This record gives sequence, structure tokens and C-alpha cells, in this order.
Amino acid sequence: MLYSSVNNIKIKELAKLKNKKYRDKEGLFLIEGEHLVKEAYNSGYLKELLLLENTNFNLEIETNYITKNVLKYLTNVETPTGIIGICKRKNMRLNGKKLLVLDSIQDPGNMGTIIRSSVAFNIDTIIINDKCVDIYSDKVIRSSQGMIFKTNIIKEDLHSFITKIKGQIPIYGTKVTGGKDLKTLEKISEFAIIMGNEGNGVDPKLLDLCDEYLYIPMNKNCESLNVGVATSIILYELTK
Amino acid sequence: MLYSSVNNIKIKELAKLKNKKYRDKEGLFLIEGEHLVKEAYNSGYLKELLLLENTNFNLEIETNYITKNVLKYLTNVETPTGIIGICKRKNMRLNGKKLLVLDSIQDPGNMGTIIRSSVAFNIDTIIINDKCVDIYSDKVIRSSQGMIFKTNIIKEDLHSFITKIKGQIPIYGTKVTGGKDLKTLEKISEFAIIMGNEGNGVDPKLLDLCDEYLYIPMNKNCESLNVGVATSIILYELTK
Repeated sequence: MLYSSVNNIKIKELAKLKNKKYRDKEGLFLIEGEHLVKEAYNSGYLKELLLLENTNFNLEIETNYITKNVLKYLTNVETPTGIIGICKRKNMRLNGKKLLVLDSIQDPGNMGTIIRSSVAFNIDTIIINDKCVDIYSDKVIRSSQGMIFKTNIIKEDLHSFITKIKGQIPIYGTKVTGGKDLKTLEKISEFAIIMGNEGNGVDPKLLDLCDEYLYIPMNKNCESLNVGVATSIILYELTK
Repeated sequence: MLYSSVNNIKIKELAKLKNKKYRDKEGLFLIEGEHLVKEAYNSGYLKELLLLENTNFNLEIETNYITKNVLKYLTNVETPTGIIGICKRKNMRLNGKKLLVLDSIQDPGNMGTIIRSSVAFNIDTIIINDKCVDIYSDKVIRSSQGMIFKTNIIKEDLHSFITKIKGQIPIYGTKVTGGKDLKTLEKISEFAIIMGNEGNGVDPKLLDLCDEYLYIPMNKNCESLNVGVATSIILYELTK
């Protein structure tokens, strides 16, 4: 069918998904553009497709149409493509023994980049806490380039989680000074690596629980790297 | 003195610096916040300081004051700190033999991240083309965490530039498939590495001029990495 009014109940409900509270409540989120929609479809996340009328785009999924004003009402971007996907969250569980633990990553671009690199470098599960930016926000999904549909992410209280896995898997933290030069690290196939907030780093209480600390050797003129970059370099090295 | 009106000629001129055209014309740019202002001061970029009245912040540089409405008029951020620096560009020249060549990097966050990583991993000169985002835009400077003041960046026609250095320094390009696994690269102390646009990669005409191609080994589920991440991983490996 064709939705032509922003006052339509379904359209109003969908627009509410711009808000984290509603995304959490409904278990749904919106995505935009051909690339993301295809990735969501291939990974079984896509529930329904909304196309700007006269847009030619075929997937074997329930498809409805919207007018320009409805598209403008639902979109998060300045120049919408006319392809909107309604996605349903999946239930995810801790899986594997290559774990990335994220403490309060707040920038959506960084979160998306980290998710993208986690797929590239074979992380089994990403564990986030409730101070992290919402992974279903449009900016995170866009920055992840759709890799969010290929990864496994769970939310936990990090202190309890790390305490629980302590002794089973080596736990690595990062410190700007001290610890082990990342370049000298031997090959490891099981690990939990903890990365922390853009401004404050990893919570000291979590750092205390680590078995070993890593640092990325760099010029002393530079205090630190972007957290998306630092995480990616560490994951790159750990997949040796 | 205290500037209290947004109609003041000097304040109006400064506000124009939000626009690339005026930044280019005047050779000036604005920065905000204690951290960036200190970095600019230490690197000799800071020309004048504008403080919200009653702000306590001392540097040995010409300092004037502004009222809240003027601050709001000049700022680029939602919650301004009340510390604005007026900076003067420096003339920069090609220097050293560790070169990073950027073809049409357009996202300011990526450009800032790359600048930050370039300082961390000892790049001597970054060469950009005129399709790159303006390095003096506030988002680039913020993402660089002030590292823009510690790096050397020149703008060139990249085809001419690469042709000129060809034969003198090994030129590396990146390809998703083919080429040499980055992890098997021997230590090199002289190089020019070319990184390309977020969507389109490196211009094929530039790629043709490369002596060798590198790729970052990764899971086939992931097509590519964020360009800031890919650049940083390559620079990290090259500084072995």
C-alpha cells in the first residue's frame, strides 16, 4: 500500500524509532539506503521495506510505499535515497573466545568504526555497557557500513562480566605508558580486550581486573590515538 | 578590550572564518577550547585569544574579551567553553621521506583522525589535493585533537607530485585484493603511501603510478575498513 500522510498511525510509530526509548521498547530500528538494506536482508534483520513511490527495488520481503513528505518525515539524512528498511533486533548471546569489551564508548562514529573493524578482525562477541551509545542509532549503523548485521553484540555490567570470565580467558587492558608493547605480543587465540571511553579511558576498577596491559608504541608528541583507531590496530595485531 | 556587539567589524570578520573561502583569503582560522588553544600556542599558531568575560585563562599573547552573545555568534559548538583562539596559518614545505598522500578524503572526522595518527606514527609530510576537506575546518581540527599543529601538510596536484617523486621514493598504493600482505612487509624508512576517498578509493591514474600495492588481511565478511583506520594500521606497520 501507499502511505501518504505523516498522521497515519503506523508512520507516526515508525518516526518514534528515531528515539532510543522507542527502539528499546519496540525492538525495532530503521535503516536507509540500498547497501544497508541489502546487508540487513542478507542477515535476516529486515522485516519490511518502505520505498518512495516509483522506486524500483526488489527484495522478497513485505514492501510498502511512501510519498515524498512521509520519506522526509522518517529520514535521518539530508538527501534520502527513498529506501527505508524496518529491522527487528535479534537476541544475541556470548559466543566464542575472542572478545572485545567496550566501556562507555560514546561517539557514534567511533562505535560504528569499531563494529566494522571487529568483523574485519574476527571478533566473536562485543560486550558493551549501558553507557555506550545506542548501537541501533542511525549514525552507528551507517558508520559500521552494515557490519552491525554481521556481528554479535551483548550488553552487560562490565565489572560482573569481567569478574565472571577472569581466569578462563586472558584479559587485556590498555595503558598509554607501562605494560607490553603491542608489537611484541605473541600470537593468542583467546582474549578479552577492554577499550574505554573517548575522554576518560577504561574505568580503573575494570583495569585492575586485567591480566596484562598493552600499549601501542608511538611518537611522544602524540598523547593518544582515536579510540576507533587504537581498537582496530590492537585487533589487527591480535589476528596475527 | 571587551567586544559586546555582533555588529562590531572585527567580530563580523571573525565570524566569516566559518567559511572556507574566508579562511583561505585571510590565512586565519578559529579554534575553541583550552586543549586546542594550548596546542596552538605551543606550536606558534596562536595569534590572539578571545575569552568570555570573567574567564580566567592566561597565555602570553594578545587577549581580548567577548560577551556571551558574541561567543554564541562565533562558536561552532553547542556548549562553548568561552575560550576562542585566532590562529594564523604557517607556510609549509615538503619535508622528509615518510610521506602520506591523501586523495580526496572528504569526511572531516576521518581527516582529523588521519592527521592525529600521522603524528603518532612519524609521518614527515602529508600531501593532500584540493578535493580533500579543508584541514582548517573546525571539525577536522577537533578530530585531530590539536595534532594538526604538530604536522606538516602541503596541497599539491597529486598526479604531478607522484610523477615527480617516482623513482626517488618507493610509492605504495592499497588494493583490497592483490598486492602484498601488509603483515609481510619488510621494514622501510622511506615511502610515499597513497590513501583514497571514502567511497571511491584512490584515483586509478594515481594507482597506476605505484611501485607496490598493499592490502590489510581481513575477514571476507568485511569489504573494507574505515579509511582513517586503514591509514592508521598501515602507518603503524610502516613504523616497525
